[in-house]
Amino acid sequence: MKKEGMLVIISGPSGAGKGTVVTELIKTGEFSLSISATTRKPRPGEIDGTHYYFYDKETFETMQKKNQLLEWAEFCGNYYGTPRKYVEKQMAEGKNVILEIEVQGALQIKELYPECVLVFLIPPNLEELGRRLIKRGTEDKQTINRRIHRALEEMEFILQYDYIVINETIQKATEDICAIVKAESMKSSRNTKIKEQFKGEIELC
Amino acid sequence: MKKEGMLVIISGPSGAGKGTVVTELIKTGEFSLSISATTRKPRPGEIDGTHYYFYDKETFETMQKKNQLLEWAEFCGNYYGTPRKYVEKQMAEGKNVILEIEVQGALQIKELYPECVLVFLIPPNLEELGRRLIKRGTEDKQTINRRIHRALEEMEFILQYDYIVINETIQKATEDICAIVKAESMKSSRNTKIKEQFKGEIELC
Repeated sequence: MKKEGMLVIISGPSGAGKGTVVTELIKTGEFSLSISATTRKPRPGEIDGTHYYFYDKETFETMQKKNQLLEWAEFCGNYYGTPRKYVEKQMAEGKNVILEIEVQGALQIKELYPECVLVFLIPPNLEELGRRLIKRGTEDKQTINRRIHRALEEMEFILQYDYIVINETIQKATEDICAIVKAESMKSSRNTKIKEQFKGEIELC
Repeated sequence: MKKEGMLVIISGPSGAGKGTVVTELIKTGEFSLSISATTRKPRPGEIDGTHYYFYDKETFETMQKKNQLLEWAEFCGNYYGTPRKYVEKQMAEGKNVILEIEVQGALQIKELYPECVLVFLIPPNLEELGRRLIKRGTEDKQTINRRIHRALEEMEFILQYDYIVINETIQKATEDICAIVKAESMKSSRNTKIKEQFKGEIELC
């Protein structure tokens, strides 16, 4: 019997290196990347279906209504969301899907799929971040306050994530996430059929 | 702040290769092996404090009464148990402790330490085990029935374990268990202080 793939969601503060780590994870060949949908206009060089699925507002709103998005949010007047179909198709085929999204979207998906794996990526210097924000002195007080506020807000959700990965080096963070996925695949809760298979074999004798 | 070590418990049916895998895990240098206490007499070559702690019945029963054993059981008129002191000392020093014990003892310890990690090791041919037990034809019907009964009994508990590791090769099983321990160490539930540390830093500014 084919085992269903895993949905792995990566979040974390800006500067944590999420994009680079996700690129490295895709290179391992063990993950498919979920591509987001958006109503914002493509920037030069951005390709539909590669960087984003570019939809008009009407199409996006129809997808919302038809429950075709795993999560969605609005930023600066544009919609962003995760199309359900691709993710579910990949998982049904036994492929792990990786998704890099904001905390709110991640928690929305965890409600839908409790078995998805939430990874919070933090920079190694997180403990010093507050102090550095103050000491850097290159930004005005308002910007500093906003950053501290934002970082504190994100930290409020960190314990709702399953794992916290400290991005000391890209290679180590990539290996850490691969170890998480490997361990998760051995969880008894993901292998509940083993007992039945074994019993079935004995009954066949 | 020093992080507490992890208690990793390995169980599984006989023939799964538990002993060999535990030996390989110790070789990685990442684990201390917990040594059991017993009231049975040492066999030739067995050293007190290396293979077992050999105690007389009175001493063992005093340890039971004083709650100095994490778990204990009686087999063939002898007591076997896990001394609490060594395990707790190693963990307090940040060392991972590995323990190879029976299902009942493992579940007793999980009650005491919900954060311990239970690993059930199975041979790769588990699905065929029932059929093979019948087909082998070298054992009498009573022995076959007893083995099937025992294997089925053990399988009843498999989903109470955290992880199921299939021992395809010793090297792979060892790597699998190391990945489990690595992933477990990144669980947010084992890193609850990160948020407080971060907040503390910001308040210091």
